[in-house]
Amino acid sequence: MPAAQPFGPELQRLIELLAKVPGLGPRSARRAALGLLRRKESLMLPLGDAIETAAARVNKCSICGNLDTRDPCSICSDPARDKRTICVVEEVSDVWALERANVFHGLYHVLGGVLSAIDGIGPDDLAIAPLVARARAGLSEVILATNATVDGQATAHYVTDALQSSGVKVTRLAYGVPVGGELDYLDEGTLKAALQSRRPM
Amino acid sequence: MPAAQPFGPELQRLIELLAKVPGLGPRSARRAALGLLRRKESLMLPLGDAIETAAARVNKCSICGNLDTRDPCSICSDPARDKRTICVVEEVSDVWALERANVFHGLYHVLGGVLSAIDGIGPDDLAIAPLVARARAGLSEVILATNATVDGQATAHYVTDALQSSGVKVTRLAYGVPVGGELDYLDEGTLKAALQSRRPM
Repeated sequence: MPAAQPFGPELQRLIELLAKVPGLGPRSARRAALGLLRRKESLMLPLGDAIETAAARVNKCSICGNLDTRDPCSICSDPARDKRTICVVEEVSDVWALERANVFHGLYHVLGGVLSAIDGIGPDDLAIAPLVARARAGLSEVILATNATVDGQATAHYVTDALQSSGVKVTRLAYGVPVGGELDYLDEGTLKAALQSRRPM
Repeated sequence: MPAAQPFGPELQRLIELLAKVPGLGPRSARRAALGLLRRKESLMLPLGDAIETAAARVNKCSICGNLDTRDPCSICSDPARDKRTICVVEEVSDVWALERANVFHGLYHVLGGVLSAIDGIGPDDLAIAPLVARARAGLSEVILATNATVDGQATAHYVTDALQSSGVKVTRLAYGVPVGGELDYLDEGTLKAALQSRRPM
């Protein structure tokens, strides 16, 4: 941007910070700032308050790594959940995705990323040791639900090895044709996995 | 979303408000909330503060409609600017776009939108009367820089008629091939305008 800004330092700072929010960039941050200023009472002030409240009250669950205002989180402290089955995911967003689908009723374990040689992320950067400790404390099954990417699968293999000494049953999500998916649009890897894991009708 | 949320009401509220920010939707709002919580000190708390500061201090300029912490805004009160030439734009974002390009050194007038029969936006909903008043107070030129859309052009024609009694010279931005543009990718309307407005080499 040129030296002469058409707006003061307060707006400049707001736009620069908005541009760092995942999903926004420099251009959409300007649009977002204008949209906020246009709806000061109904959106901008409530959002400022919501950000500060959440920043003050939301923390990582010390057991599973989920984000919540309570610790242990609502999931870990829910008596209706199956405490002997743990689903291992990369990020908190994966916990939310599975919860939205409402298909899993055990507990979670958020690794906090995947092993990545390029990004210099090793086993000590992920919550693998706490997972092994949870497994040793007594679990019936650990379901690996890392992404079906190269890094996600490599991480799943590493975690499987790390869990071996605990004797827990380790499974992973099935690979295959996504429900509603059309074969024509699927990649070779998915088609191969779907074919290899075919089931009797 | 199902009844059982994997997060508390504070996070729920933050995500709902983020989803209303222009440029974000329900899915990207969740990603944004996680990104903020991951960078609490470096991004989330400063953003909350920047939003509240900007909401409290940034207002519409009473002369041109630009957003700034001062009124008249920095542009209207800049003594180096040509006060006899006014560029009429639809939105504050257009002021910013022209200022970034650093190609115009007069003042602005933000209409606050365009005439739109579908959206029920008539002349009284736009800052057209204040523009006529500014023109009557003495201007050498009004440059219409509404968007080259049907509504933008209709609005430009309406503003031209409204300004007629003031006797001010009214011009509009040139239509033509965008610099760096390839003919193959341009629509017929642009090519027609570029051909009609051709210039000697």
